[in-house]
Amino acid sequence: MATINEHFLKLRAGYLFPEVSRRVRAYQEKNPKAKIISLGIGDVTQPLPPAIIKAMKKAVDEMGNKATFHGYGPERGYDFLIDAIIENDYKSRGVDLDRSEVFVSDGAKCDTGNILDIFGLDNVVAITDPSYPVYVDSNVMAGRTGEANTKGQYKKIVYMPCTAENGFIPALPKSHVDIVFLCFPNNPTGAVATKKILSKWVDFAYKRQAILLFDAAYEAFITDPKIPHSIYEIEGAKDVAIEFRSFSKTAGFTGVRCAFTVVPKQLKAKGPRGKAVKVNPLWSRRHSTKFNGASYISQASAAAVYTDEGKEQCRKIIKIYMRNANLIHSSLARLGYQVYGGKNAPYIWLKTLSNMSSWNFFDRLLQNANVVGTPGEGFGPAGQGYFRLTAFATPENVKEAMGRFAGI
Amino acid sequence: MATINEHFLKLRAGYLFPEVSRRVRAYQEKNPKAKIISLGIGDVTQPLPPAIIKAMKKAVDEMGNKATFHGYGPERGYDFLIDAIIENDYKSRGVDLDRSEVFVSDGAKCDTGNILDIFGLDNVVAITDPSYPVYVDSNVMAGRTGEANTKGQYKKIVYMPCTAENGFIPALPKSHVDIVFLCFPNNPTGAVATKKILSKWVDFAYKRQAILLFDAAYEAFITDPKIPHSIYEIEGAKDVAIEFRSFSKTAGFTGVRCAFTVVPKQLKAKGPRGKAVKVNPLWSRRHSTKFNGASYISQASAAAVYTDEGKEQCRKIIKIYMRNANLIHSSLARLGYQVYGGKNAPYIWLKTLSNMSSWNFFDRLLQNANVVGTPGEGFGPAGQGYFRLTAFATPENVKEAMGRFAGI
Repeated sequence: MATINEHFLKLRAGYLFPEVSRRVRAYQEKNPKAKIISLGIGDVTQPLPPAIIKAMKKAVDEMGNKATFHGYGPERGYDFLIDAIIENDYKSRGVDLDRSEVFVSDGAKCDTGNILDIFGLDNVVAITDPSYPVYVDSNVMAGRTGEANTKGQYKKIVYMPCTAENGFIPALPKSHVDIVFLCFPNNPTGAVATKKILSKWVDFAYKRQAILLFDAAYEAFITDPKIPHSIYEIEGAKDVAIEFRSFSKTAGFTGVRCAFTVVPKQLKAKGPRGKAVKVNPLWSRRHSTKFNGASYISQASAAAVYTDEGKEQCRKIIKIYMRNANLIHSSLARLGYQVYGGKNAPYIWLKTLSNMSSWNFFDRLLQNANVVGTPGEGFGPAGQGYFRLTAFATPENVKEAMGRFAGI
Repeated sequence: MATINEHFLKLRAGYLFPEVSRRVRAYQEKNPKAKIISLGIGDVTQPLPPAIIKAMKKAVDEMGNKATFHGYGPERGYDFLIDAIIENDYKSRGVDLDRSEVFVSDGAKCDTGNILDIFGLDNVVAITDPSYPVYVDSNVMAGRTGEANTKGQYKKIVYMPCTAENGFIPALPKSHVDIVFLCFPNNPTGAVATKKILSKWVDFAYKRQAILLFDAAYEAFITDPKIPHSIYEIEGAKDVAIEFRSFSKTAGFTGVRCAFTVVPKQLKAKGPRGKAVKVNPLWSRRHSTKFNGASYISQASAAAVYTDEGKEQCRKIIKIYMRNANLIHSSLARLGYQVYGGKNAPYIWLKTLSNMSSWNFFDRLLQNANVVGTPGEGFGPAGQGYFRLTAFATPENVKEAMGRFAGI
């Protein structure tokens, strides 16, 4: 008889966002007139800017014309997009990349999960607590963990707590680890890593022969010129790190689907009989065997993000979100909250009042202010007592929500 | 030290299509004036029809407008598309499906590979020989096979030979199998399965408690009204089968990326202590954890495939390809070839002349006729001595290619 992958049964049932939706729905049903404002899920609200729409329409026209129609593209992405990525995101910051090191995909969520396919099940994985739930869940599914304990933490994963006490920067693990997930600017805490911090991690990875999986999906929100946007701005990082990027938040592509992953040619991991094996060809094989390229229309419009017009228009939109972040930060600080993030990231991380639990705070905010956020403990037990707000709502809604916060 | 997934090293180096490209490039470099016609890779050439382009432009306009902008969609797909799929592809054939049984994705290649995530590594997998290489390769990567032998067949996989002798319909495996990949209309042989044949497979799966992974990506090319389009047209199939569908060939979406998979709610597999576990929630969890939904633009245009205009226009394009298939079939038969497929499928499968090897025939055809096809052995050892041609070129090119065939 066919058997299931039993590791799936280890997954904790209540995935965060469905539970949030359930509570919101229940409240809205009981209070149909309540005008609920969501600062919960990290989804953009501003429409795609004109330069991107223009490129998208051109791509659609091409698809309707025999002479310019595009069928299957290269699984790894079109060179026109890869070249724009290398030039604008990397060369401009002193990082040289080869075309063969960039893999275009339909999303960073897929990439951060799928990348695990190419690594052995015996790797010990370190993940920050709190973190984006996909890092943990995809390792559980693959069988790299044991069962969850009552706090929802899985055996074999090395959790790295991030709290106000350590400035939301994880300490280097003392125990054995092989693969480390890092995300800066961080989801959910909004913390960023300086060059010094990232250098410490690169050194650590060298010494431990570990691999860093660096999620830089929010790099476009960095405002401080001293903060690196890419892990490869750190010397030697190409020997130890894979980087994930996305157009989702940078250019409002959450519904368009385009992202990319950088796997340096020189990155190696241990193969049979301890021999070092290059990782790039493995990902290339995985990518071309189980993926058929991102939509041509998505790729053509992603390339428009790098034109002068596209850059300026995307920057404007990000400014709108960052003004939201500032307003949230300053409003809550004024109300006496301890507030973190929101300076170089679209996420604001706050301590609940009077040590209320995250879910109690969620309910109180929903009921008393009709505002939705995300309970910190949904991202891991160290998030208990914290709460995440996102800067992606419209400025009007953010203003209105902040007014209501005063009353809870 | 981080370790790699060593199963990747079992994969045979020369993936079929890159080797085809290599030989074509080498020939073209030496013969820059040769006008090479490709009947090789299964990619469409007709542009998207007007009804789809119109829907696509509307979707793009929506993305540029705050009131109609779409961010993240449901991971499983928009209801507007799922409803159109259920109504048109299934209800019209007497199959009732629930929304929760349909999962929209960005491609059937991803789905047929990724579906394996939810099954145990101990399953014995049966795959036809020849077959679409992804079925084999994704099982190798996951570790469900041993090493390859000199013929390129992997230990532990149960291969089901399909040759002229059995009409390219595999015999039911006598040894133990848990998961069976079937593809009808078949890539590469173009064979189709009658109701009787599919019923035998459904019965077999029942008796053996096996699961059928049914790839129906080419169902739109069925012209014979007696041939089922879906495995679910067979009574009881919902208890034993998962079905994969794609808009790639049906509507020319190879560059647009949209597909879907049906996982019936009643389908079960063995879980801990032999207990039967529902498969649908596992796929739902996998899909929502490691995938973020297909592009809104792709989904909106896929829905247009089901409008009256869209249906008529897509049918017209398929007729163009099927006229190509007919021409290839009749031309080659006239030249004395044994020719298969091409009646209810866009693939024509032929026996090489005088028992020439597939690759020798490839080289001869390339050199003497400047026509590219795909060597049958690239799809598995039983494909040795066979050759695949696709019907997706333009009618002019097909006509020209057939003229040249006479001279080789």
